[in-house]
Amino acid sequence: MSVTAAQGFEAAGVAVGLKSTGAKDVAVVVNRGPRKVGAAVFTTNRAKANPILWSQQVIGDGVVEAIVLNSGGANCFTGPFGFQTTHQTAEKTAELLGVSAGDVLVCSTGLIGTGDEVFRGKVLDGVEKGVAALSADGGEAASLAIMTTDSRPKRAVVTRDGWTIGGMAKGAGMLAPGLATMLVVITTDADLDAAGADAALRQATRVSFDRLDSDGCMSTNDQVTLLVSGASGIRPDGDAFAAALTELCLDLAAQLQGDAEGASHDITIEVIGAASEDDAVTVGRSVARNNLFKAAIFGNDPNWGRVLAAIGTTEAAFDPYDVDVSFNGVRVCTAGGPDRPRDEVDLAPRATHILIDLRVGDAAATILTNDLTHDYVHENSAYSS
Amino acid sequence: MSVTAAQGFEAAGVAVGLKSTGAKDVAVVVNRGPRKVGAAVFTTNRAKANPILWSQQVIGDGVVEAIVLNSGGANCFTGPFGFQTTHQTAEKTAELLGVSAGDVLVCSTGLIGTGDEVFRGKVLDGVEKGVAALSADGGEAASLAIMTTDSRPKRAVVTRDGWTIGGMAKGAGMLAPGLATMLVVITTDADLDAAGADAALRQATRVSFDRLDSDGCMSTNDQVTLLVSGASGIRPDGDAFAAALTELCLDLAAQLQGDAEGASHDITIEVIGAASEDDAVTVGRSVARNNLFKAAIFGNDPNWGRVLAAIGTTEAAFDPYDVDVSFNGVRVCTAGGPDRPRDEVDLAPRATHILIDLRVGDAAATILTNDLTHDYVHENSAYSS
Repeated sequence: MSVTAAQGFEAAGVAVGLKSTGAKDVAVVVNRGPRKVGAAVFTTNRAKANPILWSQQVIGDGVVEAIVLNSGGANCFTGPFGFQTTHQTAEKTAELLGVSAGDVLVCSTGLIGTGDEVFRGKVLDGVEKGVAALSADGGEAASLAIMTTDSRPKRAVVTRDGWTIGGMAKGAGMLAPGLATMLVVITTDADLDAAGADAALRQATRVSFDRLDSDGCMSTNDQVTLLVSGASGIRPDGDAFAAALTELCLDLAAQLQGDAEGASHDITIEVIGAASEDDAVTVGRSVARNNLFKAAIFGNDPNWGRVLAAIGTTEAAFDPYDVDVSFNGVRVCTAGGPDRPRDEVDLAPRATHILIDLRVGDAAATILTNDLTHDYVHENSAYSS
Repeated sequence: MSVTAAQGFEAAGVAVGLKSTGAKDVAVVVNRGPRKVGAAVFTTNRAKANPILWSQQVIGDGVVEAIVLNSGGANCFTGPFGFQTTHQTAEKTAELLGVSAGDVLVCSTGLIGTGDEVFRGKVLDGVEKGVAALSADGGEAASLAIMTTDSRPKRAVVTRDGWTIGGMAKGAGMLAPGLATMLVVITTDADLDAAGADAALRQATRVSFDRLDSDGCMSTNDQVTLLVSGASGIRPDGDAFAAALTELCLDLAAQLQGDAEGASHDITIEVIGAASEDDAVTVGRSVARNNLFKAAIFGNDPNWGRVLAAIGTTEAAFDPYDVDVSFNGVRVCTAGGPDRPRDEVDLAPRATHILIDLRVGDAAATILTNDLTHDYVHENSAYSS
C-alpha cells in the first residue's frame, strides 16, 4: 500500500514513455485530508536539480497538497528551460487539483542533463494521466513509477494505535549521506503540525537514510518528503511518532541497501566505544567509503588491515593501536595486532557485520554500505546514468 | 640506474624468500658521499606501520647513512615484536656498515599484519646479503626488490650541469594523497644541507605524489626519502634543485599512475579558474574519488553530470551553474547545461584529460587518477594485500 496505507491520501502511477521499456514513470500523490502539512529534506549537494530548487521553495511554509515524481530523466543541469518544466509540472498539477502551484512538490530522477521539450511534454502528459488515475489504492502503482535501476519497489508501513505511516522509496546506487539517489515519499494520517513533522523527519532521516552510504557518491536530485493528512484525528506523542517514523525509514533504508547496484554483500558497520556519535559516524563512513575494504568483502576476505588503514585517515578520538575489529562475530584484530585467525570468519552470507570498538567512550553509530563488485563496475560503466 | 645514478651511492637488491615467487625482496641503499643528509615525508595515516614509526625518529636530525626496504610484508600492526624487528633491521645494517643505527631508515611493504619470526629472520638475512652485494651499479636491482603488485619497476633520472638526481618508486594501488602505497627513494650528489633537502622534498612531493590519487585509499607504510651525498661538490641554487626534483617526482608519479592496479585509463584532472590552489585541489580530488565518474571513464562515457555531482559535494568557491567541463578537449558542459554532443568525445585512448573551469579566479591544480575497472575489483578482491 505504501503511500496510500495512511488515510487521507490518493496516489497513481502511470506510463508516458519516459522509460523506454514502457513501464510506469510518473507518480502523483495527493493529500485529501484535513491537514495539508509537508516536510522534506533535500540533497546537500550544491549541484541541485531543478525539482530540488523548486521544492525547496514550496516546502518553506510547511503546506503541501501534492507531490509529482518522474523517473526517466533528472531534469538537472538543463538550464532555465528545465526549471520552467518543473514549474509547469507544478502548475498543471495544481490546476487539475484546484490548489496552488506553490503547494506542489516535484521530484525527478534519471540521467543528468535530460530535460528537453520531449521530456517536458511527457511529464506534463504524466501529470494529466496521473491525476485522472488517482485512487486510494494507488500506492503500489506509484511505488513502481519511481523505480530506475531498482530491481524491485521499496514499500513499508508502520501502524500504531489508530494512526499509520506508509512510505515508498527508490534508489539503487549513488547512495550517500546528505541523501543519495533516493526519492522517498512518506505519508501519515497522524495529526502533526508543520514544525512537528519537520522535527520528526529530520530526527528519523539522520539515523537512517543519512547513514546509508552505498558508494560514497551524492546525488543531485535526492529528496525525502513527509506528507501529513491528519485524517486519523489522532495527535500522537512527538517521541512516539518520531520512533515510528524512524522504524519506517530504517526499513526503507535497508531495502535500498539490499538492492544496491551490483552488490553481493549488505555490510553493517557498527562503531562502538567512540568518544562521540559524530566520531562513530566519521569512523564508520571512512570504512564504508574505502574501495579496498569493499573489494575485500566482495572477495570474502576479512581484511582488518584495510579497516585500520581506513579509520587511520580520520581525526576521530582513538588510539590506532588499541582498537578491536570483528568480522561476523570473530575478533580478528585487537590492540593493534592480529587476534583470531582469519579463516574462522565466514563471509559467504550476504549479511555482513563489522564491529569496530574504539575503546575510548560510550558513543556508537551504525553505517550501512555494500561491497565493491564486478557488477557494480558493470552497471555503472556499461550505460549512462 | 635509479638510486645509483648520482655519485656517492651504492645499492643492492637481493632475494631472501619474502616473496613466494623467489624474486628480489630486500633493497639496501647506502650513502658513501661526503654529505650524509636525509629528508623524508611519511604517510599522514594515523595507522602507521612500525618502519614509519622508526623512520620518523631517524629523520629527526637530518642525518641518514642508509635505507633498507623490504617487500613481502608491511610489518604494520604487528605489535612490539614488529617494532623490534624494524629496530634490529636498522641495528644489523648499522653494524655491518660501521655506522649508527639511528642513521638507518627502514621501509616495509606488503600485507598488513605480516611480521612474525619467519619474517624477521628473512629481513635480517636480506640485510646481510644486501650489504654484501652493495655496488655502484646496484640501482636497478634495488628497484626490482621493492616491487609488490607493480608490473614493472619505476626509475627516473634528472641531470643538470654537474649534478644528478635519481630515484626509484614502487606502488600500484592504494595511491592516495598524504602519500599512498608508495615507497620512493631519491638520491642526489648535489650538495645540500638538511634544511634545504627537506624544503625541496616537501615542495616537490606537494605537487607530485600528493596529487596522485588512484583509489582514494591511504596506506600505512608510505615514505618518500631523499638522500644527499654531496659527491658532485656542487651546491645548486635552491629553486633550481627544487625544480629538478619536482620534474623527477612527476616522472615517477606518472609511472605509478600508469601502472595502477587494473586501470585502463590514466586520468588527468586539470582544474582551472579556481579562487585558490586549495580549492582547485579539493575539486579535482572530489572527482578523482567519485566511483561513478571513474566507472563511467572505464565505460568510455563522457558523463559530465557525474563530474558536477562530485564537485557539488565540495565547499570550494564556484557556482555549479557556471562551470565548464571538457573531456579530451571537447567541452560537453557549459553554464550548467549541455554543450557539445557527448559522441564527439573519444575516450578510447588510455590518456584521459578532464578540464574543469570553475570561472571564479586564476588558481589551478592537476590531480592524477585512474578509472574503476573490473580488473581493479579483481586484483583487490581475489587475494589479500
